[in-house]
Amino acid sequence: MQVNANTPQDAEDAFYDALEAGSLEGLMASWDDAEDIACLLPMQPLVNGREAVRAVFAPFCGQGRHVAVSVTHLRWFESETLAIHLVEERTGPPPGQPAMPVYAINVYRHGPNGWRLIIHQNAPPPPPAGMTPPGVPGA
Amino acid sequence: MQVNANTPQDAEDAFYDALEAGSLEGLMASWDDAEDIACLLPMQPLVNGREAVRAVFAPFCGQGRHVAVSVTHLRWFESETLAIHLVEERTGPPPGQPAMPVYAINVYRHGPNGWRLIIHQNAPPPPPAGMTPPGVPGA
Repeated sequence: MQVNANTPQDAEDAFYDALEAGSLEGLMASWDDAEDIACLLPMQPLVNGREAVRAVFAPFCGQGRHVAVSVTHLRWFESETLAIHLVEERTGPPPGQPAMPVYAINVYRHGPNGWRLIIHQNAPPPPPAGMTPPGVPGA
Repeated sequence: MQVNANTPQDAEDAFYDALEAGSLEGLMASWDDAEDIACLLPMQPLVNGREAVRAVFAPFCGQGRHVAVSVTHLRWFESETLAIHLVEERTGPPPGQPAMPVYAINVYRHGPNGWRLIIHQNAPPPPPAGMTPPGVPGA
C-alpha cells in the first residue's frame, strides 16, 4: 500500500481513515519509512521504528477491529518540511463512561514520497471534574 | 527579561534553566510572544496563550520553589523555522517513590527574536511493571 500525501493533512487523513478501517497496512503507509519515527500512546512506553510502531497498532486492526475517532484541530504549525498538528481525538466511550477527549500531537515530515507521519503522541485527558490531578511535579 | 536564542537548543536550555531557577520571568521569556502557544501538562487541560501558560507554571516558581529536571534527548527534527524535540525529563521523585521519566515534546519556532518555545506537551510515564495500562482505546 502506498500513500503519496501532498499535504500534511492528506497524511493525517490517511492515518485516521486507516484506524477507522482497522487497516494496519493503511496505517503503516501513512508513517514515514525511516526508522526515526516514534509513537507514544497514553501510559505506554515510547516506541521507535516501524516494527515497534506496527506492533503498537496491531491490536486495533484486523478481524473486524477498528477505532472510530473524530478529530478536531486545536493548533497547526507548518514549515516546508515539517508540520505539527495538535488535535483533540474523541473515540466512542466504553458503555457507561462519559466520552473524554484525548490530546494528540502529530508531526509530519516531507520527503521523497510526500508527507508522512513521524511522531504520534497522545496525552490522556484531565480527570473528571472534582478530582484533583495527581501531583506530577513535571514541567 | 529577553531571550535571543540562536538555536532551538538555546531556547530549550533557557526554558529548563528557568525551571531549575524557579524564575517565572525567565520561563516566559523562553516562550514565543504569540498567543498561539500551547501547553499540556500531565492529566491537565490544554492551555493556550501566554497568560494561561504563565498561570500553569506559576506554582513551580518563586519563593524558593523550582523544579530540578534533567533532560535526555530522544528524537530531534528541525527545519528552518520549526523544530521538534522529543525528550525524557527526570525530576527528583517524592520521598519513597521511584524516579520515573516523563516524556515531553517541545516545539520551537524561529521568529524575529530567534527561536522560542511554542508547544510543551508532557505525557505521564507508563505504570510500574506488573500494572496494566488503563484501557484507553486511543490511537
